[in-house]
Amino acid sequence: MPEAASAPALRATIGDSEFDRDTAVTPREPGVYDIDLSAGWTIINAVNGGYLLAVLGRALADTLPHADPFTLSAHYLTASQPGPAVVRTQTVRTGRTLSTGQASLFQTDDQGREVERIRLLASYGDLGALPDDVRTSAEPPAIPPMDQCFGPEDGPAPVDGSSAIMDRLMLKLDPSTLGWALGKPSGKGEMRAWFGLADGRDHDPLSLLLAVDALPPTAFELGLKGWVPTVELTVHVRSRPAPGPLRVSITTRNLAGGFLEEDAEVWDSADRLVAQSRQLARARLG
Amino acid sequence: MPEAASAPALRATIGDSEFDRDTAVTPREPGVYDIDLSAGWTIINAVNGGYLLAVLGRALADTLPHADPFTLSAHYLTASQPGPAVVRTQTVRTGRTLSTGQASLFQTDDQGREVERIRLLASYGDLGALPDDVRTSAEPPAIPPMDQCFGPEDGPAPVDGSSAIMDRLMLKLDPSTLGWALGKPSGKGEMRAWFGLADGRDHDPLSLLLAVDALPPTAFELGLKGWVPTVELTVHVRSRPAPGPLRVSITTRNLAGGFLEEDAEVWDSADRLVAQSRQLARARLG
Repeated sequence: MPEAASAPALRATIGDSEFDRDTAVTPREPGVYDIDLSAGWTIINAVNGGYLLAVLGRALADTLPHADPFTLSAHYLTASQPGPAVVRTQTVRTGRTLSTGQASLFQTDDQGREVERIRLLASYGDLGALPDDVRTSAEPPAIPPMDQCFGPEDGPAPVDGSSAIMDRLMLKLDPSTLGWALGKPSGKGEMRAWFGLADGRDHDPLSLLLAVDALPPTAFELGLKGWVPTVELTVHVRSRPAPGPLRVSITTRNLAGGFLEEDAEVWDSADRLVAQSRQLARARLG
Repeated sequence: MPEAASAPALRATIGDSEFDRDTAVTPREPGVYDIDLSAGWTIINAVNGGYLLAVLGRALADTLPHADPFTLSAHYLTASQPGPAVVRTQTVRTGRTLSTGQASLFQTDDQGREVERIRLLASYGDLGALPDDVRTSAEPPAIPPMDQCFGPEDGPAPVDGSSAIMDRLMLKLDPSTLGWALGKPSGKGEMRAWFGLADGRDHDPLSLLLAVDALPPTAFELGLKGWVPTVELTVHVRSRPAPGPLRVSITTRNLAGGFLEEDAEVWDSADRLVAQSRQLARARLG
């Protein structure tokens, strides 16, 4: 799909963009949705976990009486493939401020059996109804200006078999977390980047679900190679993001026993911490 | 139950302790377990969320082919009461290294209706089978020696209606995170303590689930009063804990819009990071 790589004449908008079209779910019956998982969001041939989270998140937003994801916990069971899938949701509890739901994504295997890919629990609310108080002690990550950062288009593909999703993202990595791409990983479990959608679509809570799982794994800076499959990923969406690019910072403190955690913070252009996530992933020790 | 508060003549052991008896589940049929939730683990009249996690964790350990919780994500739906409850589990997927399951805890209300209290997704494995490599950059929290820390028995109850669970825990709070108890909260979202079971039982993966949700809320040090109900809590168990007391450090970076996250790290006596957790909780703004 080379058209996505060229700069669009007009910026895409929330609701009318490739991300929206590729995460749109079609109701089949109450609580059951069909989707064709796009090959446009694959990374090294696997469908990106954040894209899948956005698909499930959109289905639950339709099922539940509240529209905004507040906290989603996804367990990744088997690797999703581009192509048809079905999302089955369940309303677990509805409340005044929060509602809780469950969703699973299934695909049909070669033998015609339905295989579950992901299952998640999530609580939804109304971000617009939250009071305006912010008493955060967190500070935005120190990332150099965007023109001093580097994207996949600025050099040879640092990851073999580089991937369709990169055409759809605006990803500019902090050079101080790019040692791995030059064969000199820093040894620190850090990855930082400016993040947007290539077609200029601004962010909403659903695209934040994409943002938390779109950077190269911190394991690369820890000197590991190969992919780092997610076991479980939990996201908290804390605020509706302001227009403009996001800054994403990912940190790993504990690589042990073949597993590591990746903590992501997502900051918007108004210097607000709009999402926090943590995943447990498996490290392929060389 | 005053006998729990006095020092036992013999240390309790894993498998033969009040914590083990009070989290024991009785199989009713495959995947369904009965339990009588003990009033001994209540905090301000609510059953402690970590105790409930241990109950669900024990049921899933029985259901799944793997015995050790690796990652559990719980959504708290309604407040549990001491008394009879039923845990319904489901095996979602079994694999060689990891198995995934789901569990819900139900109680019957005054009208005889079954009400769901908590639902969780969890992936289990075998902690003993993990390789020994540790490349963590995390460092244990700086907590003063235990005899310079303070527990509920060292002064007037800092929380109104102080609670049965305190008789069952060995909790010694770092004085630098105790300002709230003296009416002078530090304004920092930090809480640190030595943590053990009062009867001397050593720790195992199940009691780590208790450890991550047993300290006073960081919100107290941020100057908030009143309780801080958990919306969602995810724990990663990273290693089997060594014998001896644990150190627990809890940090909040982002109090905003009436919600806050609490990140817990649990360290064992061998200076190993044995569990990490994050919860999203509601703050009652005064």
